[in-house]
Formats: sequence, C-alpha cells, structure tokens
Amino acid sequence: MDFINKLKAIWDKNNSLLCVGLDPDMPNLPEHLKDGEAPYFNFNKAIIDATAELVCAYKPNSAFYEARGAAGIQELQLTCAYIHENYPDIPVILDFKRGDIGNTNSQYAAFAFDYLGADAVTVQPWQGGEAVQVFLDRKDKGIMILDRTSNTGSGEFQDLLVNDRKLYLQVAQNVRDNWNKNGNCLLVVGATFPQEMAEIRELVGDDMIFLVPGMGAQGGDTGATVKAGLNLAGTGLVINSSRSIIFASSGEDFAEAARQKALGFREEINKYRGQKA
Amino acid sequence: MDFINKLKAIWDKNNSLLCVGLDPDMPNLPEHLKDGEAPYFNFNKAIIDATAELVCAYKPNSAFYEARGAAGIQELQLTCAYIHENYPDIPVILDFKRGDIGNTNSQYAAFAFDYLGADAVTVQPWQGGEAVQVFLDRKDKGIMILDRTSNTGSGEFQDLLVNDRKLYLQVAQNVRDNWNKNGNCLLVVGATFPQEMAEIRELVGDDMIFLVPGMGAQGGDTGATVKAGLNLAGTGLVINSSRSIIFASSGEDFAEAARQKALGFREEINKYRGQKA
Repeated sequence: MDFINKLKAIWDKNNSLLCVGLDPDMPNLPEHLKDGEAPYFNFNKAIIDATAELVCAYKPNSAFYEARGAAGIQELQLTCAYIHENYPDIPVILDFKRGDIGNTNSQYAAFAFDYLGADAVTVQPWQGGEAVQVFLDRKDKGIMILDRTSNTGSGEFQDLLVNDRKLYLQVAQNVRDNWNKNGNCLLVVGATFPQEMAEIRELVGDDMIFLVPGMGAQGGDTGATVKAGLNLAGTGLVINSSRSIIFASSGEDFAEAARQKALGFREEINKYRGQKA
Repeated sequence: MDFINKLKAIWDKNNSLLCVGLDPDMPNLPEHLKDGEAPYFNFNKAIIDATAELVCAYKPNSAFYEARGAAGIQELQLTCAYIHENYPDIPVILDFKRGDIGNTNSQYAAFAFDYLGADAVTVQPWQGGEAVQVFLDRKDKGIMILDRTSNTGSGEFQDLLVNDRKLYLQVAQNVRDNWNKNGNCLLVVGATFPQEMAEIRELVGDDMIFLVPGMGAQGGDTGATVKAGLNLAGTGLVINSSRSIIFASSGEDFAEAARQKALGFREEINKYRGQKA
C-alpha cells in the first residue's frame, strides 16, 4: 500500500493524528539502557511496543543516529525493520531533510527507501523541484517538503516577500501546482506558527497533508495548531512530538510513561478535531 | 589550525584550487575492487594517494556512503581518517547539506566533526541563521552555506525577486552581515552560473571563499568560472570535480588516470588565475 493510503488507514484504525519522533540521545536515555548493546534500538523498541496502538506514524530523525556513526545507522536500520515487521500498518517517516542535485539525491533515496524501507521522507526545497524529482518519482512514498519550519528564526528567508506574499506560500503553491503530479507530496509546517499554517491550508486546499513538528518541547499550542491545520474531514495532519513523549521519564518506567503521554496527547488532539477554525 | 588557514596553506603548497569529490558508487568502480572488502575505502585510498600533491581539499559527499547504510558510513569514516593521518595538511569537506532545528543540528555536527573529524561542512540556508548557529559557533570549522546551486532548476526559488533582487543575493548578504561573525562562513556557488557567481563576489567582497561544484560532469566552464569567482589575490575558490576525475578510467589504471585528470584540471584552473574578470 502506498504511504498516503497507509496513513489514512492508520488514522482511522488508531483514531490518531499523533506521530512519535524516535530521537534518542545518550544523555537522556534511562541509565539501565546506556551501557547495553544497541541502546537506541532497545530504547525505541520499548517505546514502540508501548505506543503502537496510539500513533499514526513513527518518525526517526536521522541526525540522532548519525551522531553515533555506523553503529547508530545500524540501530536506525534495526528500528525501521522492527516497525515494519511488528507493526506493518504503521508508516515510518524518515526525517532526514536531505537536498542535493538529482544524481546525489538518488543515493539519498537508496538510503531511505532501499536500506531503511522508509515510507516517507522529509526534503529541502532550496534547490527546486528539478533536484528532488528523484524523490517525487517514488509514487508509493510520501515526500514531505520543508515549508514553514518550527524554529524561532525560520522567518529569515521563509517570510521574505516575493510576488507580494511570503516565500513559504510560494513554495506551497509550487508544490501544489508542479511538484505533486503523483499526489505524494506533503508539506512540513511547524506547530509554532498556526496563523501561517492556516494560510497554507487555505492555499493548498483540503487534500494535502501536513507534517507538523514543534509540538511539546518546542512549545506549539495543540488547540491552535489543530484548528489551523485540519482539513474538512478532520484529518490532514501528522502531528509529531518527540522529546516530550519519549523522555517522559528517565527511569525504568520510561516506556509506560511515554505511553501515558502519548495517550494524553492523542486525546488532546482529538478534542479539537471537530473544531476546524 | 582552523579550516580557513589550513586551506590557505594548501592553496599555496600545492598551487591548487582543485578539490576532488570522493563520491564512489558501485556501478562505476573498477571491477577488481567491487567484490573486495571496503570497496569504497580502497577506491578512495588509491585516488587520494594519486592526487594528494594536486589538490587543496577532498570532498566526500555523504549520500554515496549512506546509500550502503552502516557499512558505507564505516568506509566514510575510514576515508576521513586516512586523509587526516596521511595528509594532515589537506582539509576534508564533508558535503552533507544538512539543515534542521538547532537541537538536531548539534547531532549532525557531532557526526561531521566528532565522528568524522571533518574540517568543513555544507549546510542548507532554508531554516535561517538561528537554526545553523550550532555550526557557525564552531570557529575552527568551515561552514559552507548553499547559495546559488549548480543544478539546472536551481532558480525556482533562488532566483525569485525579494527587495528587488534575487533571493540568492539576499542569502549571501545575510551570511556576510550576520552569519559570519566568526569569519568561518563560505558560500556554495555552482560553476554552471558564472554570471551569478560574479554578482555574489561583487556583493560579499574578496574575503569570502566559494565552494564551487558543477565542473566536469555537470558542464561548468572553467575559464568563465575562475574569472567570475576569483578574488584579487587570485584565490577565494575551492573548485570541485568528482565524477570526471575519480571515474576517468574504470580499469586497473583508475588511480593514475585520476591523477592525470587532476593534473590537467589544476593546470587549466591555474591558467585563468591571473585573469580576474
């Protein structure tokens, strides 16, 4: 099944728009896992088993694995394989924010889709649609283009005026009109900017799905975000939280604590799903 | 020694502005290396030994290693370590074009600088200077920001008009005025756009160095590029070529063929170094 349909099915099945970001880092791991073999994989496995009924996707961010070099990449591969084997209906979003010329992007696509078996990836807009065509050509995969990002300084270029409106709207329009021939494009829109999210929803219409980082540790407001980004079907969003869920406890109860956090967050999101702004 | 001074020293020592891109990929490797252990590392080692007197830097592109997963990353690490041990005066540029929020970029920095020991990295501008501050803070490292890229479709956003001039000039100006407090910023400017390169040189002045991809397989013109990008000292450029050098021959003579190509290319570049446009 392609990514979009896999996502739609799990939205329904788990009644959830919540994505859990699998971004382990050593200082935040529970003590009892730090010295074992494959600490990131074992951490992730416990988080996944505890939350699989509550999420619509898992999103490992490549950076956290790369920081540990080849060993980390190995654990990223184990993590993706574990999800595919044990929870085949939950899509894996590889958050790697890559972008290069086409020849090089084909190598990144091999990493994401062949080596890791990811169902979707995040990519950079800067080099234009021609550069990322090799991603766009993968009809079965979700291609999530960074649009209005969640960081405090994201407006430096994204908010510049082009053709009398802000650049992130131009990116959204180009994706809508030119990049999305296969219907596999999504936009990355930070939870920290609900007003901008509402504008983008208005521009691209109901069909395009947003990946929404910036909730939790980065301070995005759940109600404002959900109301701004929802489509008329009460979906259209993949709302990610990483640190505030996976590091809910640093004790041996970390997985149960993550489950409780995820449970609460799913409910909170669902509370606003009937309240499209 | 910091990256900028290391680069200036090797420009002089090797009388070269040429950077060799270490971008192996399996179909292009010589047959006798394909089935051996660590094929990318062994390929790179031979290329490095054959060209070390002729270059000012090596630039492995992370994508080509990632495509082979953990095994590829291991060979990237071996490649970087080999250069540092055997040719410590030649800087290693990790071309990984990363960009994320600050918290995540610190993990990418750990990959580049701690795990691989890279002297410089390429980064994305899209999320703004605040996001890449963790890179900019590394005073000893070169931070190369994608500005006008070499791909044919790079103008889609980079050429949009903001404040009556093109966006890539705004990026260059922000880097010049705000990002470069530590004097460690460089810009990535494709060889395929010499006119744009001349404008950027005019804007940022003589001190800022450009990493120049797009020569060779991508079709950049050597004379036009060198004349457009040189500073008054006849330097200011790190001109990369990957495929046209490293895959000059697919036979057992591949390293010698790469040496001959590099020799010719260094000469060709040097021919124009007195001819600032």
